[in-house]
Amino acid sequence: MRKEITLKELHTDNFISEKINEIKNIVGEGTAINALSGGIDSSVVTLLGHRALGPRLRTIFVDNGLMREGESSEVIKMFSGFGIDVEVLDARDKFFSALKGITNPEEKREAITQTFYKDVFGKCVRESEARHLLQGTILTDIDETVAGIKRQHNVFEQLGIDPEKTFGYKIIEPLIQLRKAGVRKVGEALGLSREMFERIPFPGPGLAARVIGEVNPERIKTVRKATSVIERILSSSGAFQYLAVLHEDRVTGINAGRREFGQQIEIRCWDSVDARTATPSNLPFNILRELADKIIEEVPGVVSVTYNITTKPPSTIEAI
Amino acid sequence: MRKEITLKELHTDNFISEKINEIKNIVGEGTAINALSGGIDSSVVTLLGHRALGPRLRTIFVDNGLMREGESSEVIKMFSGFGIDVEVLDARDKFFSALKGITNPEEKREAITQTFYKDVFGKCVRESEARHLLQGTILTDIDETVAGIKRQHNVFEQLGIDPEKTFGYKIIEPLIQLRKAGVRKVGEALGLSREMFERIPFPGPGLAARVIGEVNPERIKTVRKATSVIERILSSSGAFQYLAVLHEDRVTGINAGRREFGQQIEIRCWDSVDARTATPSNLPFNILRELADKIIEEVPGVVSVTYNITTKPPSTIEAI
Repeated sequence: MRKEITLKELHTDNFISEKINEIKNIVGEGTAINALSGGIDSSVVTLLGHRALGPRLRTIFVDNGLMREGESSEVIKMFSGFGIDVEVLDARDKFFSALKGITNPEEKREAITQTFYKDVFGKCVRESEARHLLQGTILTDIDETVAGIKRQHNVFEQLGIDPEKTFGYKIIEPLIQLRKAGVRKVGEALGLSREMFERIPFPGPGLAARVIGEVNPERIKTVRKATSVIERILSSSGAFQYLAVLHEDRVTGINAGRREFGQQIEIRCWDSVDARTATPSNLPFNILRELADKIIEEVPGVVSVTYNITTKPPSTIEAI
Repeated sequence: MRKEITLKELHTDNFISEKINEIKNIVGEGTAINALSGGIDSSVVTLLGHRALGPRLRTIFVDNGLMREGESSEVIKMFSGFGIDVEVLDARDKFFSALKGITNPEEKREAITQTFYKDVFGKCVRESEARHLLQGTILTDIDETVAGIKRQHNVFEQLGIDPEKTFGYKIIEPLIQLRKAGVRKVGEALGLSREMFERIPFPGPGLAARVIGEVNPERIKTVRKATSVIERILSSSGAFQYLAVLHEDRVTGINAGRREFGQQIEIRCWDSVDARTATPSNLPFNILRELADKIIEEVPGVVSVTYNITTKPPSTIEAI
């Protein structure tokens, strides 16, 4: 494995031209495919790949129905600004079918991963001519993988491709020697906008990670609306991360003078440097009250709002 | 029905001696019985009854297992200071059996009410010689009762007594012309301690009203510990009411470096005059952080703590 390129060693112009050449050399006259999530890693890979291959790179954006408000259209628009025509796969029904009736958080994550790899993106890769897969793996992802796993083999297996039967598949990971800060620096040099860097972290399973209990279109709609309110009010807070959690527990509320068991939204807003440890932000009380009032006003069915006041550890950033 | 005695009209010494005479006249040479919850109304009735009847009033304290830490022993001790020997009925098993498997809040309340009236206190009344029942009903309770209900008949029915079959039962309600402030004034004149008046409100179903999902001894133990921490830290806050809610939803936490689905405690602390409307107290952030840290530290299994930031309405004071 090639060794780390530290932030100090990283010369972005050199790095970019080296990677473009590498991708060109590996793919040759063939075609490549990649999945764009809208996160920084897959965005940088998409830009490098298109600089190398132009339209011979197919970039797929999977709409899993678990995104934030306006998120997919913003991503498409941003890449369109770079002259890149991202293909959108509307797979919302597939994800919601896979999630139906599941309440266990691990099973939820597994259903989302399986649907993405095997069913949606895997199918797309298998049906395409492309034999080269571009991936935004970074060094930190490798650190987090248990040693000894044959990763390349694993990725294809996830995609439902048996590399021993179907020869010729190759994986290309241009960012594998970088960590997050390096990827940001390269992204900046490639012309990614400030908004892109300033976007707060969003988990892989999307809003599904913020719904306790079953994930369905209605409950995603509820947590999406609450997320919009929170991101709108806290965008200038300077916090590391802020999010809404929709609880499964019902609490008593009063609606038009009558008792009603309503839903509860939990707000989390974190101060953190690297997400490994975090403390709840000391938000002014009038902001907390504004958050609660606006969520009650704008999100139907919600009668109660809480603010998480635990540190990480023992809490985690996301709820599930 | 006799008319209200306003706070202005209330002359406590006259009121007390009138009520003592009334109780003496009604009970004559018989015996009476009453249930003491530890709340202000039943405490005042117990004191009036004992001033009138001495040991011919049997005062029963039902330990339902749903009380706060040390609550039953404090009540017993306080009345012992007045020379009153309160009988404790340990009915914890009966209440927990009745609550087993019930998650619907209305069914929970109903199970507690039924167990108290029919099973525990009702049985006690039926087996006793007493034909007079002292009750701490106040005018506000009557206002809240739907007009037209035959209350006396109802109380006996609740106790499993058919007044048409078993003649001679009488209900005595010495506080029926007063509201809360009047009861407090009478209590003070009877020598009830400041602590008694300053105790924050506690709901009828006890800690069961603060457990979302099934009520069992282990979960009551959890919410009781959290309640102790909150009452200790917020006792000088001047807030109208503060309480802990144990959620059924599990959230991810980190315990000794490993992911673990743990429990969440919600803190509610209200500013209010009469509980009809309320706003969350603007507690200093260091107090919120102290609350979270101490709950995590002292209550096993809890990995997450939130603070409710909703007003009433649309929220309610208690969670269920």
